[in-house]
Amino acid sequence: MKTGLQLAIAGLGTVGAEVARQVISNNAHFQRQAGMAVTITAVSARDADKDRGFSMQGIQFCDNPLALASMDNVDVVVELIGGSDGVALDLVEAAIANGKHVITANKALLAHHGYMLAEKAEKAGVMLAAEASVAGGIPVLKTLRESLSGNQITRITGILNGTCNYILSTMQHQGRDFDDVLAEAQALGYAEADPSFDIDGVDAAHKLALLGAIGFGTAPSIGAVDVTGVRAITMTDMDNAQKLGCTIRLLAEAEKNTDGEVLMRVRPVIQPLDSQLAKIDGPLNAVTFTGEPIGAITAIGPGAGAGATASAVLADIVDLAVGRITPFFGIPASQLAAAPQRVAPQKEECYFIRLKVYDRPGVLADITTILKDHAISVESLLQSGRSDDGENGDVPVILTTHEVPPQAITAAIAELTELPTVLAEPVILTMGHA
Amino acid sequence: MKTGLQLAIAGLGTVGAEVARQVISNNAHFQRQAGMAVTITAVSARDADKDRGFSMQGIQFCDNPLALASMDNVDVVVELIGGSDGVALDLVEAAIANGKHVITANKALLAHHGYMLAEKAEKAGVMLAAEASVAGGIPVLKTLRESLSGNQITRITGILNGTCNYILSTMQHQGRDFDDVLAEAQALGYAEADPSFDIDGVDAAHKLALLGAIGFGTAPSIGAVDVTGVRAITMTDMDNAQKLGCTIRLLAEAEKNTDGEVLMRVRPVIQPLDSQLAKIDGPLNAVTFTGEPIGAITAIGPGAGAGATASAVLADIVDLAVGRITPFFGIPASQLAAAPQRVAPQKEECYFIRLKVYDRPGVLADITTILKDHAISVESLLQSGRSDDGENGDVPVILTTHEVPPQAITAAIAELTELPTVLAEPVILTMGHA
Repeated sequence: MKTGLQLAIAGLGTVGAEVARQVISNNAHFQRQAGMAVTITAVSARDADKDRGFSMQGIQFCDNPLALASMDNVDVVVELIGGSDGVALDLVEAAIANGKHVITANKALLAHHGYMLAEKAEKAGVMLAAEASVAGGIPVLKTLRESLSGNQITRITGILNGTCNYILSTMQHQGRDFDDVLAEAQALGYAEADPSFDIDGVDAAHKLALLGAIGFGTAPSIGAVDVTGVRAITMTDMDNAQKLGCTIRLLAEAEKNTDGEVLMRVRPVIQPLDSQLAKIDGPLNAVTFTGEPIGAITAIGPGAGAGATASAVLADIVDLAVGRITPFFGIPASQLAAAPQRVAPQKEECYFIRLKVYDRPGVLADITTILKDHAISVESLLQSGRSDDGENGDVPVILTTHEVPPQAITAAIAELTELPTVLAEPVILTMGHA
Repeated sequence: MKTGLQLAIAGLGTVGAEVARQVISNNAHFQRQAGMAVTITAVSARDADKDRGFSMQGIQFCDNPLALASMDNVDVVVELIGGSDGVALDLVEAAIANGKHVITANKALLAHHGYMLAEKAEKAGVMLAAEASVAGGIPVLKTLRESLSGNQITRITGILNGTCNYILSTMQHQGRDFDDVLAEAQALGYAEADPSFDIDGVDAAHKLALLGAIGFGTAPSIGAVDVTGVRAITMTDMDNAQKLGCTIRLLAEAEKNTDGEVLMRVRPVIQPLDSQLAKIDGPLNAVTFTGEPIGAITAIGPGAGAGATASAVLADIVDLAVGRITPFFGIPASQLAAAPQRVAPQKEECYFIRLKVYDRPGVLADITTILKDHAISVESLLQSGRSDDGENGDVPVILTTHEVPPQAITAAIAELTELPTVLAEPVILTMGHA
């Protein structure tokens, strides 16, 4: 029986520093929960001298994070460096190879290398835990892996990227343009200087790949996720969504289709205002799990931020200390089914399409003829005056359709894009459900 | 290393039968999650011959549930009989004494005897688990006990009784009277023939006592919960709540006050329509945990029903099979602080008061004089015509107050009740927050 747990923290950004502060300042509480002493014996960060709000007394500072993986007085490496490869991957592999437990918040690393790392951790008899990697403080991995273990999961839906959600909900409530809100999000620390990973949907896709793997018992597969980000969304789209009694949210969805294939998508969806997901504002995350026999449960909470993310890391530490060690994917990696391939959606859906067109006679006839050729039934068509960003007499045309097969939309959009009067890549959003 | 887990199920009502059906019909899935064979070896129920949708082949039927506690081929007793004492208590005690693990959905049993049972289970080295006892399929116990283990919990708020929530939300949306909706809820199986435990708030109080114990690390204490049910709520109250942009929900709240005392209350609250809790309709449950460093997370889902409750029981079975055995209260019972005493609320709140008064001159002057004497600042006062159930010229008077100390309200209500023109026990609701 061990008498204590010795942690090394690699990366002392906002999350790493908060984890250290919590372990040190709430040590009595933490020790009661863990049933043993928990101490930080070593850390690694870019700057050794920065004051991070906790005392470095008794803590060894290492310039090289890899050093943490081989220290005798380290039982657990807490990897908070980030990135799918490079130092983070090297550190986690070295730690596992040396028989250290690993706790990380790194969704990119796990989406890309999770299968290999889980297999190595299980062979080495160490824990690989990453509650903080998906949905921040919301315990989605534990819920899916443990609390829903007796269920057949059929669907996982979520708002998994707080940056996109902050941008979209601020556009909705304040009527401000995408670029304006993005700049604000960057100033507030909700978005990175290079926001591509967030606003192009990559971050949400990493998280969805992990949820899909755990929920459906397959190896994780980034390549199977069809990703559309929010970069193309304008206030014209948001205004039109609101006219339809809806808003726009970036949804991540994984579901089993009728052939038992796993369909995973990240995409902006027109969401009815009275739906649960439409009410998720700001940097919140929300995840709904649907399965048999439970029905559906939804969890809502802070998807990012130092405190929420630290809370998830602390929970992994306590799980380890008390012996609640679970394979990362719920079942041993060796028992996972093969990673899913990307599959084309089959289910009919209703679509919202925005085209940027020359405001000239005949343009609507050209458009509606193409839609008719593909048997797409139009529910509404609106040529809505000059757009704010209009130039040279272009206007937005907003279409909504009845339920149509996705292949018909894809084919029609390809033809519409060829029209000389259609000026830019069309924006296509799916109409979501309550 | 055990090669299999042998279950006995005591009680084959809707939940027990669903657990059995799931274990039998999804056995391959279940076995993969559990990492071992899981079989049902014995059951007990009132009627041996009833068809419950699963095969009794290989399952021993016992007329006496207590027999399950001493069978050699039983590792776990799943207690789904119910009731705080009697057979359920005898069975759980006997099972623990015989070294059997116990899984139950019985909140009344645990609220009354949980401390004693947890202590016995921990001494015997067996698991006592009851995820299904609070909030049905929502994994609130695991979330609080494990996922929030690194947090200092400051507040737990929830809609914990699906029957009351069904009644109140149906009144809200359909404008139908309490008795009418209650009768419907009974017909639909959402309410018992004797609905007292639900509508008087006792069931919610049992659940809150368990959440409070886990969240604040104390022995559970039913006596510390101040309980008001929903029996007195009429459409007059709901209509007036809606005029204020609010609805009414039965809320269970546990919080640490500024002296570090645990304040626990179950009571109907006037809840702003745009708050998360006001959107919980029908038989759903919702629980919000607030703490440091996480902030707040909310979980929403089916609080009752065979499938949701069975899901929670199945999760406990898998936890046991894979060795994720946790003390029922998160930490060993011996380390819990003493059960909290009931403490009087101190915080100022805004109140909604409905009085039934004789419609005669001077009555409002009498009322407002009493309020003035207690320094209660009235925000609005409405004498709202004849009530539907009015007789002999009585009318409802609806008052809302600014923030006032709870003692002032209690004292004023005592005096108001003495007035000869006040005809019935006043209805006092607290104004909730967004």
